[in-house]
Amino acid sequence: MPFPVYLDHNATTPLDTRVLEAMLPYLETQYGNASSRHEYGREARRAMDVARQQVAAAAGAHPAEIIFVSGGSEANNLFMKGAAAAFGREGGTVAFSAIEHPCALNAARQLARQDWRLIELPVDAAGRVTRAGVAEALAQKPRLWSVMLANNETGVLQEVAAFAASAQEQGGGWFHSDAAQVLGKLPLDFRALNQAGVHALTLSAHKAYGPKGAAALVADRRLDIIPLIAGGGQEGGLRAGTENVAAIVGFGAACELAASRLDSLSVRLRRLQTRLEAGLVLLGATLFGADAPRLPNTSYFSFAGVEGETLLTRLDRAGFAVASGAACSSANPNPSHVLMAMGVPEDLARGALRVSLGVGTNDEQIDAFLLAAKVALTDLKNLTALQDRSRRA
Amino acid sequence: MPFPVYLDHNATTPLDTRVLEAMLPYLETQYGNASSRHEYGREARRAMDVARQQVAAAAGAHPAEIIFVSGGSEANNLFMKGAAAAFGREGGTVAFSAIEHPCALNAARQLARQDWRLIELPVDAAGRVTRAGVAEALAQKPRLWSVMLANNETGVLQEVAAFAASAQEQGGGWFHSDAAQVLGKLPLDFRALNQAGVHALTLSAHKAYGPKGAAALVADRRLDIIPLIAGGGQEGGLRAGTENVAAIVGFGAACELAASRLDSLSVRLRRLQTRLEAGLVLLGATLFGADAPRLPNTSYFSFAGVEGETLLTRLDRAGFAVASGAACSSANPNPSHVLMAMGVPEDLARGALRVSLGVGTNDEQIDAFLLAAKVALTDLKNLTALQDRSRRA
Repeated sequence: MPFPVYLDHNATTPLDTRVLEAMLPYLETQYGNASSRHEYGREARRAMDVARQQVAAAAGAHPAEIIFVSGGSEANNLFMKGAAAAFGREGGTVAFSAIEHPCALNAARQLARQDWRLIELPVDAAGRVTRAGVAEALAQKPRLWSVMLANNETGVLQEVAAFAASAQEQGGGWFHSDAAQVLGKLPLDFRALNQAGVHALTLSAHKAYGPKGAAALVADRRLDIIPLIAGGGQEGGLRAGTENVAAIVGFGAACELAASRLDSLSVRLRRLQTRLEAGLVLLGATLFGADAPRLPNTSYFSFAGVEGETLLTRLDRAGFAVASGAACSSANPNPSHVLMAMGVPEDLARGALRVSLGVGTNDEQIDAFLLAAKVALTDLKNLTALQDRSRRA
Repeated sequence: MPFPVYLDHNATTPLDTRVLEAMLPYLETQYGNASSRHEYGREARRAMDVARQQVAAAAGAHPAEIIFVSGGSEANNLFMKGAAAAFGREGGTVAFSAIEHPCALNAARQLARQDWRLIELPVDAAGRVTRAGVAEALAQKPRLWSVMLANNETGVLQEVAAFAASAQEQGGGWFHSDAAQVLGKLPLDFRALNQAGVHALTLSAHKAYGPKGAAALVADRRLDIIPLIAGGGQEGGLRAGTENVAAIVGFGAACELAASRLDSLSVRLRRLQTRLEAGLVLLGATLFGADAPRLPNTSYFSFAGVEGETLLTRLDRAGFAVASGAACSSANPNPSHVLMAMGVPEDLARGALRVSLGVGTNDEQIDAFLLAAKVALTDLKNLTALQDRSRRA
């Protein structure tokens, strides 16, 4: 059986073969522990140093600002809880958008059981965090902020630099932004964001053709963080544990690759996205976030009266891999918290499907997907009509 | 240049080629996110299910007792802080051996900044946690216990089942044991340990010819844990984040391999260890922990008047990779906390070298290592004599 067409790049991406090539020596002969003081250890350390430079370069950051962790969820938790813990028991207010990834939301909810007050920043109908919401939160002088650069479900870009600048002008607070979905799709410039008032970014290798198991919290050196994983002093004492050298090397290689092809890839993805969305609209789809600037690869939509899960299953059988929401919460039967925050009616939200394109996507796949969607929709409508008729009979 | 002889298997082990073979499909075509509800996701989930069974089988546990995490340090932190957090702000007492890995010690120190009292259980001169120390701690009715099954520096085995049974008889408390150094070297039976009163074990793939980036907290289902990494609900809600499928598959394969060759390997390692230690004693070494039952692969020793770091560097140049202490704390200039706890004089402790054997070690390597050590020691003694003479002149 041929491999299904993969249209779920926001969930994870295939490992680029060049990235795997770069990793293999560290899965074969160069297996040293990067903390060991012999040749195997030094070789591992050197490889990590190179990777740290590659990641920093792709993020517009300094190598000393890179804290390697095991994944984006860990990076978000490290900021949220690690920066909160640095305030000891004083607590304070943490402001975050209502559409953050579940790992940021749930980390914040853990803080609520301590001395922290939570402010959920609202979004408008297009999925954008509102300036009014941020302005209102500013009155509480949050000590911590977290607003993602691009939402994983809608792809909608957020005005992070402007929000961070407002926060800096009025009371300060450490400002974090989850950039996991931006790496490799749009330019990232931590230096510029940092000057605007952003202190930390989350990056994840496997969202950008790197391996699962490597990610980073890019952090302003002034940011005080208590480690989530304490121990042997790795990552400047901020993240203990034997470094996953091969994955970190892959992360570095993926970052270099991302930087080298960013311009051409983003243009190509945007063109494919336009082709896809034109077809979806012809099929009667409602596109979410369409009125806001978005990532070039993400399309999130519903067909009225069609369950997203049902359509996903049909498409899966037809050989197309798409998502019905964020992969990590797909076991959750509730409609997307992102769509709820946008005020999307619940029945429309339950129809949500996400198609996220990647470097391997081409026109033929888009056209084949649209045809499969059309067939599936026709089948489902006939089925519904049949059921209605038998119910009336 | 040929690869140096690797004698540092307690720091990390080479990835077995069969393990890498098992991982490769998940680094190539089977790159799905295990939470995705399409064929790529299901394939990743199936692979994780198999790995969970393999890890459980090697540990004598049930698959539902396996919580996959990114490393042994995370597993130790997850028990220590996650189980402590489940008591909310009540706090309590946590008892742990003075020779735990830095990740357990530092996690406990983080608890000390909250409402937890710490009890460090002492060890005797042979490096064994004493029954008297445990008996004394019992009076404080610790809510949490952590005593490793085998120490990473000395290899000394601890009477964990007996301690856990005492704890269960007198006041209870959740009992954890770090088994990272035992997996693949000696049999592990979580079911038996659990019946004695042990509630959680730490395992790590890369200590047993598996990949870096996968580990597990094996946990009694009654144990209440607050996740360190909150988010998308993976691992039964106890560890969020996109699963590192390839590494977890490798962990499973490594566990299956470990179980299949455990008996023959442990006998072989013990024989090599005896050969090594006979040679070391002839060279005048003091062996640490020699009076206690130990892992079959670990030898920890000093030569009076010789700095461990100096000897390590000489051996490194001669093509032998050994450790001067736990790799993860090798940047730390202080003598080993394990040797200090054993009452080893500081100058002797500063001479400590650890040789840890593995599946690739053979008689020729042991003999070559002993010869290299002899040459290095002679050189260093001549150098010292020369310096003394020139100082007197």
